Amino acid sequence: MAGTRERIVDASSELFRRQGFASTGVKQIVEQANAPFGSVYHFFPGGKEQIGEEVVRWSGALYLDLIAAIFDGAPDVATATNDFFLGAAWTVEESDYADACPIATLALEVASTNETLRTATADVFESWVADLTRRYIAAGIGRRRAHSLAELGFCALEGAFLLSRATRDVTSIKTAGRFVSAAVRDELRRR
Amino acid sequence: MAGTRERIVDASSELFRRQGFASTGVKQIVEQANAPFGSVYHFFPGGKEQIGEEVVRWSGALYLDLIAAIFDGAPDVATATNDFFLGAAWTVEESDYADACPIATLALEVASTNETLRTATADVFESWVADLTRRYIAAGIGRRRAHSLAELGFCALEGAFLLSRATRDVTSIKTAGRFVSAAVRDELRRR
Repeated sequence: MAGTRERIVDASSELFRRQGFASTGVKQIVEQANAPFGSVYHFFPGGKEQIGEEVVRWSGALYLDLIAAIFDGAPDVATATNDFFLGAAWTVEESDYADACPIATLALEVASTNETLRTATADVFESWVADLTRRYIAAGIGRRRAHSLAELGFCALEGAFLLSRATRDVTSIKTAGRFVSAAVRDELRRR
Repeated sequence: MAGTRERIVDASSELFRRQGFASTGVKQIVEQANAPFGSVYHFFPGGKEQIGEEVVRWSGALYLDLIAAIFDGAPDVATATNDFFLGAAWTVEESDYADACPIATLALEVASTNETLRTATADVFESWVADLTRRYIAAGIGRRRAHSLAELGFCALEGAFLLSRATRDVTSIKTAGRFVSAAVRDELRRR
């Protein structure tokens, strides 16, 4: 069984992505983590804000690993891009439309109200776009175009997560994946 | 000065889109609306949930008007698509990164926790995609492709709203607009 600290982060992550940051209380976190109430303040003296920051940065690293796993196993970056969207669609459907982006709900909630958490979400989003940009550049796409494609991919996926959770239908995730992947393939052909 | 009911909806809309649904209390709504506390339950016996649903559906209608204004004033749907993204980028920057999608934050917060509000956000998102689809079809694009382009446009804009609010930079909104607009122009050329 995972340590108490790890269970707190894991439980918080699930609660934040399913119901948001504001709706989640420390009491609910300790219950879900099966941890004693005091342990939260032992590990996170900054309380819910500190847990939020840890969850954001931890999710950020986790998703970089996911990008690596999918891109390193694909024959080319256009196929990998489509595979990533298909995997995302599968996850959203399997989780009954609960698990999409791990930090989008929190990011929108805090963007205008909490600079510490806003900065953490910005760092993570930028790390994903930067990682994707590097992969497109490594595949031979020019630097500026690679960055634009990475931004488009991020935006299309995040928007499709929103639409699919609201409508309980993952079609838009697959549609977005086909478009972005086709745009990447067009660039590869221009090399 | 607007009537009390209208002021409540207007104030709630601003609070929900800037800080989210869960963070906003009825007390804050009446203060911001300059309305007596009891008036909320007079106009909205269902309390905050009923206000939430009204705000979602009212914002949905408002944005259909905005789509109409921009598309009816543009020379073609590809230009209109880009104009819509540029207008969105301007609004986000002007509002100090607070005003992006009027209902995205609430939509993510309620997707797995409140069926009444989830359904309202789904109806509104689908009404935007359907309206855009009709405009692309009217411009000569085939039905299925028109729907895919409308979905892509919606997703790219919503994701760019998220990224721009987190990073305090509207570049991604403009980038997304260029891509979607180019995809629409490519389809127009194929007619």
